[in-house]
Amino acid sequence: MAKKGKQEAGITVNKSDDFSEWYTQVIQKAELIEYTGVSGCMVIRPLAYEMWEKIQQFFDKEIKKLGVKNAYFPLLIPENLLKKEQDHVEGFTPEVAWVTHTGNSKLKERLAIRPTSETIMYDSYKKWIRSYQDLPLLINQWCNVVRWEFKHPMPFIRTREFLWQEGHTAHADKEGADKEVFKILDLYAKVFEELLAVPVLKGTKSDKEKFAGADYTVSVEMMFPDGKAIQGATSHALGQNFAKVFGISFVDKDMKKKYVWQNSWGITTRSLGIMYAIHGDDKGLVIPPKMAPNKVVIVPILFKDTKAKVLKKAKELKKKLEKYGVILDERDDYSPGWKFNEWELKGIPVRLELGPRDLEKGSVMLARRDTGEKEIVKFSGLDKKIKSVLDDIQKNMFEKAKKFLKSNIVEVKSFAEFKKAIKSGKFVKANWCGKVGCEENIKFETGGAKTLNIPFSQPKKLGKCVYCGKEGKHLLYFAKSY
Amino acid sequence: MAKKGKQEAGITVNKSDDFSEWYTQVIQKAELIEYTGVSGCMVIRPLAYEMWEKIQQFFDKEIKKLGVKNAYFPLLIPENLLKKEQDHVEGFTPEVAWVTHTGNSKLKERLAIRPTSETIMYDSYKKWIRSYQDLPLLINQWCNVVRWEFKHPMPFIRTREFLWQEGHTAHADKEGADKEVFKILDLYAKVFEELLAVPVLKGTKSDKEKFAGADYTVSVEMMFPDGKAIQGATSHALGQNFAKVFGISFVDKDMKKKYVWQNSWGITTRSLGIMYAIHGDDKGLVIPPKMAPNKVVIVPILFKDTKAKVLKKAKELKKKLEKYGVILDERDDYSPGWKFNEWELKGIPVRLELGPRDLEKGSVMLARRDTGEKEIVKFSGLDKKIKSVLDDIQKNMFEKAKKFLKSNIVEVKSFAEFKKAIKSGKFVKANWCGKVGCEENIKFETGGAKTLNIPFSQPKKLGKCVYCGKEGKHLLYFAKSY
Repeated sequence: MAKKGKQEAGITVNKSDDFSEWYTQVIQKAELIEYTGVSGCMVIRPLAYEMWEKIQQFFDKEIKKLGVKNAYFPLLIPENLLKKEQDHVEGFTPEVAWVTHTGNSKLKERLAIRPTSETIMYDSYKKWIRSYQDLPLLINQWCNVVRWEFKHPMPFIRTREFLWQEGHTAHADKEGADKEVFKILDLYAKVFEELLAVPVLKGTKSDKEKFAGADYTVSVEMMFPDGKAIQGATSHALGQNFAKVFGISFVDKDMKKKYVWQNSWGITTRSLGIMYAIHGDDKGLVIPPKMAPNKVVIVPILFKDTKAKVLKKAKELKKKLEKYGVILDERDDYSPGWKFNEWELKGIPVRLELGPRDLEKGSVMLARRDTGEKEIVKFSGLDKKIKSVLDDIQKNMFEKAKKFLKSNIVEVKSFAEFKKAIKSGKFVKANWCGKVGCEENIKFETGGAKTLNIPFSQPKKLGKCVYCGKEGKHLLYFAKSY
Repeated sequence: MAKKGKQEAGITVNKSDDFSEWYTQVIQKAELIEYTGVSGCMVIRPLAYEMWEKIQQFFDKEIKKLGVKNAYFPLLIPENLLKKEQDHVEGFTPEVAWVTHTGNSKLKERLAIRPTSETIMYDSYKKWIRSYQDLPLLINQWCNVVRWEFKHPMPFIRTREFLWQEGHTAHADKEGADKEVFKILDLYAKVFEELLAVPVLKGTKSDKEKFAGADYTVSVEMMFPDGKAIQGATSHALGQNFAKVFGISFVDKDMKKKYVWQNSWGITTRSLGIMYAIHGDDKGLVIPPKMAPNKVVIVPILFKDTKAKVLKKAKELKKKLEKYGVILDERDDYSPGWKFNEWELKGIPVRLELGPRDLEKGSVMLARRDTGEKEIVKFSGLDKKIKSVLDDIQKNMFEKAKKFLKSNIVEVKSFAEFKKAIKSGKFVKANWCGKVGCEENIKFETGGAKTLNIPFSQPKKLGKCVYCGKEGKHLLYFAKSY
C-alpha cells in the first residue's frame, strides 16, 4: 500500500481561518462522505451512517412510546397531487426532480420525486379516517427525499438528496395537535442537546419563515462556528389547511362531521453536519461519546522485542472494554504518531497508548480527544476511569458549545447596534413589531439577517421594534443563516 | 361512524377458488397496503411495515456480526454510469425510471432512479480500495428501489417501487467471496424458515436465470398457494466482472495488483407478500407469532351489569401479558362476533375471550388462529400456556407449509410426465443437460415452466436430460413462476 503522507491525510487549514474549507476537508478526510458524479448527491459512508443510526434508534424509540407507527409511502408523487395545496406547491415546485420517462416510454403525467410527503400521505389519510375512533392517526416514515436546490452544496448541510424521518399525524382537535407539536420539538431538542451535545434555541418561526402550508412552525436553531445560524429540526402545526384541501374529515362523538387537525415534523441527516461543524477542531472531528460508534482506540507502541507482550495486553484490554466499542490499531506499517493523527482526525473520544514501559508499570496513557489532556491510568481502575471520562467529555463538549452560543448572542436596542452585531458574526436578540415589512427590510439592509425563531418565554413588557420603532410584539433571534 | 357490515369487511372468495382475488382482498382489507394514483406504487401501511421492521432487526443484527456496516448511496445514477457494465445494463434499462428535469431546467444527462446500486456503489469502491488492508469491504444499505415493470402489479410481490437491503462486498480472493455468498443465503433461509415459517428450496440459478452481471447466483425459492414458484431472495457472486469494468483493484501482500472479487445480495418487501400468501386462509391473514407485532388480542364480552368487572380483569390480563404485544379491543359499538372476524382477518395468533361467566370460573377462552382450536385456560396458567401455544403455532405453520411444498413436488423421468405435472400446478424435479436450448424449449412447450434452482446436494449418478435425452448434468426444480 502506498503510505499516505501526513500532508495528504491531515487537515491543512485552521477552523478559525477558513471554516468552509476546514469543514469540507474534515468531512471527506474523516471518511464521512464521498462525492459522486451528481453535484449535491453524496454517499453517506459507514462512519457517518452509524451515527445516523444512533439518532434513529433514539428518536424511533421515543416516538413509538407516543404511539407513533412507522410506514412507507411511495417515492413518486403525481404532479396533480403535489400541486393540490397552493402554498405548499409554491414552496417546493422550483426544487422538484421530475420523472418523465420509464424504460422507453414517456409518462402521461410527470411524477415528482418526493421533496416531502404531505400530499401523497394525506391522499391516503382521507381514506383511512372516518370516525373519532380512528384518531389520532400517528404515522412516521424514515426515508430519502430530493430537493434540487441550486445553491452551492455542502456535505450534510445542503444536499440535493438527504435522509430524514417525517412524522405526519392527524388529531380530532387543535389541543391534541398543539400538544404534540411541542412534545416533538422537545424530543428534537433532546437529540441535539443530549446526544449530539449541541445546544439549541427553541421557538416559533415567523410567518415568513414557517413551512409552506402550516399554521405555525416551531424549530430548534443552532449556531455554526462561523456565526451563521442553522435550522436543526422543525415541527409544524398544519391546522386544517391540508385537511380541507384533501377532504380529511371524521364524524365526532357528537355525530358532527369535522376536519382533522394535522401536524408534520422532521429531522434530517443535516443534524450530523451540525454536530461535526460545531465540535470539530484543527485536528479534525470531535465526536461526543454518545454518538461515537467506537468510543475508545488503543494504539500499542510496538518495538521488536516487546511487541508480543504489548499486543497481548492490548488485546486483553480491548476485550475488557468491548462495551464501549474499541478499535485496536495493530497495523504494522504505520507509526504511533501517524495513528494518533488518524484517530484524532476521526474524532474518537478516548485514546489509550500502551508501550513496554506502560506495561511494566501496569498502566496506560489515556488521552482525551476534546481537551487533549493526558493521564496515566492503572489497569485496575481503567474501566471505571473510562466511564467517568466519557461522561465528562459529553458534558464538557455541551458546555463548551453552550458557552460559545451564549457569548455570541447580543441583545440590541437600536438598528445601528443591530447591523454592527450582524456584521461581526453575532446572533442578535431584538424586539420586532411582527410586520413582515420590517422583517424584509432588516434582511435586505443587513445583507441577509433573517428571523430565526421567537422564544416561547417572552418578557412581560417589550421594547420598541428595532427597525420601525413601533410597538414591539416579540423579542427574538436574528442572524444570517444557511 | 358508519359501521362496516361483515359483507364489506370480510373476504368474499375462498383462497382455493380464486387465489389472486383472495390475495388482493386480504392484503387490502387487513390494512397492509393502500393503492395510490400511480399503478404499482403502493403504501406499506403500519401493520405490514412493523413486520418489515422485524425482518430488518433480525437480518441487520446478523450481518453486523459478520462485520458488515450500513451506509447510504445516492438514489440517482447518471446514465453513463448505469450503462458501464454491459450485461447489467441490458438487464435493467427497460425498467428504469428517468429523471430528466429539475425545477424548470432540463438536465444535461438523464439520471436513473436506482433499480439496484452496483454501479453507483462501485464507482466509490474504486476510490476506497487500495490495499489488501482495505479488504474485505463489507457494506449494506436499506433503501427503496424502482423497477418500472410492465406486468400486472401485485401488492408486495410485484411493485414498481419496493424496499430492500442490498449488501455489496469486495474480497481479496474468490474463496472469501464464495464463502460469504453461501453464508448470506443461509441467513435468508433462516429469515424465511425461522421468522416467516416459510420453507425454502436453496440452490444455484441457471446461467439464463442468474443476475445480470454475476458469475453465479444462489437463491431461495418458495411455492405459492397456486403452485407457482416465487424467488424469495438472492445472493450473487459477481466475480471480477464489475471490478474490471470499474477498475477496483488492490495491492496484495505479495505486492501484486489484483482485481477484487465482489458479491451482492438482497431481500425485499416481497418476502412479506410470500408470507401472507402462503399462510392465509379463507378468514384472512395468519401471521406466524415471531412476525406478529401483537401476538394476542383480548376480546371482552361486555354486558351492561358486568362490564366494569370484566373490563377491569381484561386490563389486568393485558398488563400481565404485555411482553407478547396485546391488543385489548374494548370498542363499544362492535359485537364480539364482529371483533372476532376482524382480528382473524388481521391474523393475530392468539385470541382470548373473556366474559362474565369466564370471570366467575377464573378462566378465559383461548382461540388459536392457525387451527381455530379453542381451549379454556385458568388465569393462573395463562402466561405459560400462551408461550407454549405461540411456539406451537410457529412450528405448526412451518410444518404445514413444508408438507404442502413437499406434496407438490413431482420427480419425473419423461417430458410427458413433466408437462402433465406442470399442467396440474406442481413443481417438477427433473434431470437437465445444462444446455440453455433445452431450458428454453421446456419453457416454451410447457407454457412457461422455468428452472428455479439447482439444489446444492446432487445425486452421484444422474439420469438423462428430461427434454433431449442426453447426459444429465443437474437434478433441479422447474415451475411456472411469478
